[in-house]
Amino acid sequence: MKLSYTDLINDYLANIYNDSLSAELDESMKYSLLAGGKRVRPVLLLTTLEMFGKSAESGLSAAAAIEMIHSYSLIHDDLPAMDNDDYRRGQLTNHKVFGEATAILAGDGLLTDSFTQLMGDKHLTADTKVKLARLISLAAGSRGMVGGQMLDMAAEKSELTLQEMETVHTHKTGDLIRTCFLCAGVIAEQNDEAMEKLDTLGSKVGLLFQIKDDILDVEGSLEEMGKEAGSDAVNSKTTYVTLLGLPEAKRVMAEVHDESVRLVNNLTDNGTAMVELLDYIVTRSK
Amino acid sequence: MKLSYTDLINDYLANIYNDSLSAELDESMKYSLLAGGKRVRPVLLLTTLEMFGKSAESGLSAAAAIEMIHSYSLIHDDLPAMDNDDYRRGQLTNHKVFGEATAILAGDGLLTDSFTQLMGDKHLTADTKVKLARLISLAAGSRGMVGGQMLDMAAEKSELTLQEMETVHTHKTGDLIRTCFLCAGVIAEQNDEAMEKLDTLGSKVGLLFQIKDDILDVEGSLEEMGKEAGSDAVNSKTTYVTLLGLPEAKRVMAEVHDESVRLVNNLTDNGTAMVELLDYIVTRSK
Repeated sequence: MKLSYTDLINDYLANIYNDSLSAELDESMKYSLLAGGKRVRPVLLLTTLEMFGKSAESGLSAAAAIEMIHSYSLIHDDLPAMDNDDYRRGQLTNHKVFGEATAILAGDGLLTDSFTQLMGDKHLTADTKVKLARLISLAAGSRGMVGGQMLDMAAEKSELTLQEMETVHTHKTGDLIRTCFLCAGVIAEQNDEAMEKLDTLGSKVGLLFQIKDDILDVEGSLEEMGKEAGSDAVNSKTTYVTLLGLPEAKRVMAEVHDESVRLVNNLTDNGTAMVELLDYIVTRSK
Repeated sequence: MKLSYTDLINDYLANIYNDSLSAELDESMKYSLLAGGKRVRPVLLLTTLEMFGKSAESGLSAAAAIEMIHSYSLIHDDLPAMDNDDYRRGQLTNHKVFGEATAILAGDGLLTDSFTQLMGDKHLTADTKVKLARLISLAAGSRGMVGGQMLDMAAEKSELTLQEMETVHTHKTGDLIRTCFLCAGVIAEQNDEAMEKLDTLGSKVGLLFQIKDDILDVEGSLEEMGKEAGSDAVNSKTTYVTLLGLPEAKRVMAEVHDESVRLVNNLTDNGTAMVELLDYIVTRSK
């Protein structure tokens, strides 16, 4: 993980809310938005820009929009009516600290404000901003993340086929990750052929994350993961590991990793940082 | 209320969801989005366009975005953790039909999808779309509607001063109404002076709505309102009527109405439809 990109995005996010209508609402939004986390999506976007020799600055507002949307989705997913989680990254969840009503509004605020700050970007052309907002809202909305979350809830406790499980992941977590690559492609003004490759690469990276998460759920320690290993099994969740077994899940992950690296090298001569990031994704311990 | 504009917006909204990832999610979103309602905000936007001789078609995607956002806000406001309402416009609220989790996601979906459809508009320039998305997200986000809802919750059961109550209304309901006028101004490419007048007019119309709602809560019948008259008093809500008394509230409303009519006639020679709309707002019985 490229540390400087994480710092850049943290700085940017810390400066989005510098005035206030409701101090309590802002406190609640910042509690979740600035709670740390790995900033995987922003770093993926900025590292994709680097593949095309573009500065990180040009991607900060899109990266921030995606992170704000990711952050809102975690707040809403943790609500009692949804996953009913008390802890997230070792901290109390938003509604445990601020109450359910404020947590719902904090999520709504982060989602809506993500577009305000993107539209206000001073570096991008109007044409680029429209393309970015369309990509991001499509990936996050009822045909993307929100739809995937809905499918995931419907699938809970029932055994899924590999294909059904992949449809859930593709939308629930995959679409927003894939969109990081597409946004970078738009900002770097890539042609249709490159955009198609970025789409494929983005899908593969989403898949890598999911398989690794499933493996970590079995192999990770409480200390590193911040939650009990084996929680998927306790919740009877269908995962790559339950469907394929651990050795085959690892083999598939290695295969997808290698395909991703080949795609990066096919797209650019400047892929070192992205390949490091791909290596990190499959070797991380949390 | 201009019937043809209501039909136009209803047709447009009915065609937004023509494919599906989760059929249940779509059903839930459509249940609220297509539940009727007066379509006040879209009609205000399209009637403002008419003041400047612009076709309704050019405003449909912005009007739809605002109505989708209004619709999501009602779904989330009705949730048990918020106002805990079982009925809305005489129908069961979204979460009573689809459950809380789906209602939360339906709101998230409508909010996010509002930007997707706006960005996909085929008639507007990229520059116009960026301005519209910025206006709408600003009015709907933590510095607008969501922030106002937060202030309203914090103020519940406590007695507000006139100024405090106006701050709540300005943001909770006023910002989105005001933005209808600003969006029309942007689409009709109005200059700064006209935009300032539209801003003032939009604020006044938001105020008109609020005073009339407060008066209707005292004077309206259950049959017409779909809720018990006097519910504000039961909930110890601070309103224009509780603060000013009924006769003074009516006098202020008439004054704001007349100021609004003067502003319309100052802005255009083509204000007949808007003036009819202003008359409707203060004479409606529900």
